[in-house]
Amino acid sequence: MIQKLQIRTRGPGLTEITENVSQILDAAGLSEGLCSLLVQHTSASLTIQENADPSAKRDLERWLDRLVPEGDPLYTHTLEGADDMPSHIKAALTATTLSIPFQDGRLCLGTWQGVYLWEHRRRGSRREVVVHLG
Amino acid sequence: MIQKLQIRTRGPGLTEITENVSQILDAAGLSEGLCSLLVQHTSASLTIQENADPSAKRDLERWLDRLVPEGDPLYTHTLEGADDMPSHIKAALTATTLSIPFQDGRLCLGTWQGVYLWEHRRRGSRREVVVHLG
Amino acid sequence: MIQKLQIRTRGPGLTEITENVSQILDAAGLSEGLCSLLVQHTSASLTIQENADPSAKRDLERWLDRLVPEGDPLYTHTLEGADDMPSHIKAALTATTLSIPFQDGRLCLGTWQGVYLWEHRRRGSRREVVVHLG
Repeated sequence: MIQKLQIRTRGPGLTEITENVSQILDAAGLSEGLCSLLVQHTSASLTIQENADPSAKRDLERWLDRLVPEGDPLYTHTLEGADDMPSHIKAALTATTLSIPFQDGRLCLGTWQGVYLWEHRRRGSRREVVVHLG
Repeated sequence: MIQKLQIRTRGPGLTEITENVSQILDAAGLSEGLCSLLVQHTSASLTIQENADPSAKRDLERWLDRLVPEGDPLYTHTLEGADDMPSHIKAALTATTLSIPFQDGRLCLGTWQGVYLWEHRRRGSRREVVVHLG
Repeated sequence: MIQKLQIRTRGPGLTEITENVSQILDAAGLSEGLCSLLVQHTSASLTIQENADPSAKRDLERWLDRLVPEGDPLYTHTLEGADDMPSHIKAALTATTLSIPFQDGRLCLGTWQGVYLWEHRRRGSRREVVVHLG
């Protein structure tokens, strides 16, 4: 079964989507299987990260920002804005697809794990995540 | 169903394989499911990236090259050539497996997304990608 | 089918788990399908890497350590130890989930590929990997 999630982001950073994915899983009524996610963009990505302390997410964002800064003279792909090429690189270094097993109707995530959409563009956007349950 | 793609690369960089994967999907005649890819090498990788402007792919390649240069005195694994250890690192930082949902017989990629084999060796090679449809 | 692997690590670095996953596959008696792995932690990750020369694994570990060092003044998330925030970043840069096709009851890995659990914490830990066969 395939569903689509629409996530509105307001700027760079991690937006937790664990609940959104879990709701799709609940509605499907499936007990056991694999939940696969694909973000349909090249300037946003997916990650599974700590869902407890917000400082971990902030540091992660700031660290990646420093590794892949705007205004790097290396970039020639600049027509779509100063944050566009860094966004593609950040997406390449993180994940575009994830596959999460589920059991008893629940995602098999660890205690401290959350599923996140990682927005890399400054202005944010409406992001689409394809969810496949099988 | 499992099939294998053979991709000939001529040197470092991104080779689009979206069409190759789509042809396997067409031939299989399946409507909906999950298409999983595994590149069977540790000096090449997979990525989903922008398929519009070639400058984005070039910048991506040059950026990763600068982050993981040849000749780094840190490397002790140098017997297979100066580009071997950087290739393993680049592969570890990107993806070896991808899972892409498909619907109505088509990969659920975003408008600007293409699937790429990322060659990291200087001389290129014959690369094998396992495609699982389920 | 879902099973869980418990892997004891003694410190940072790559622990090969190819055999552990293969044993689960053997016991399941399935011929063809997709084997999906999820590591249930945010300070350890998964990777498919060269299983031949141990120097490649050591260089990989040292390279990532240099890219994401402890004690970076950027970190504010420091309560859980100096190696905690670097661990989260390293996990984000590598893989939390992998999907490996199997055929004739064997993982479709390349000749030189092994599946690894990548421990990022200094003290090591008991790590759990969820294995889904479908």
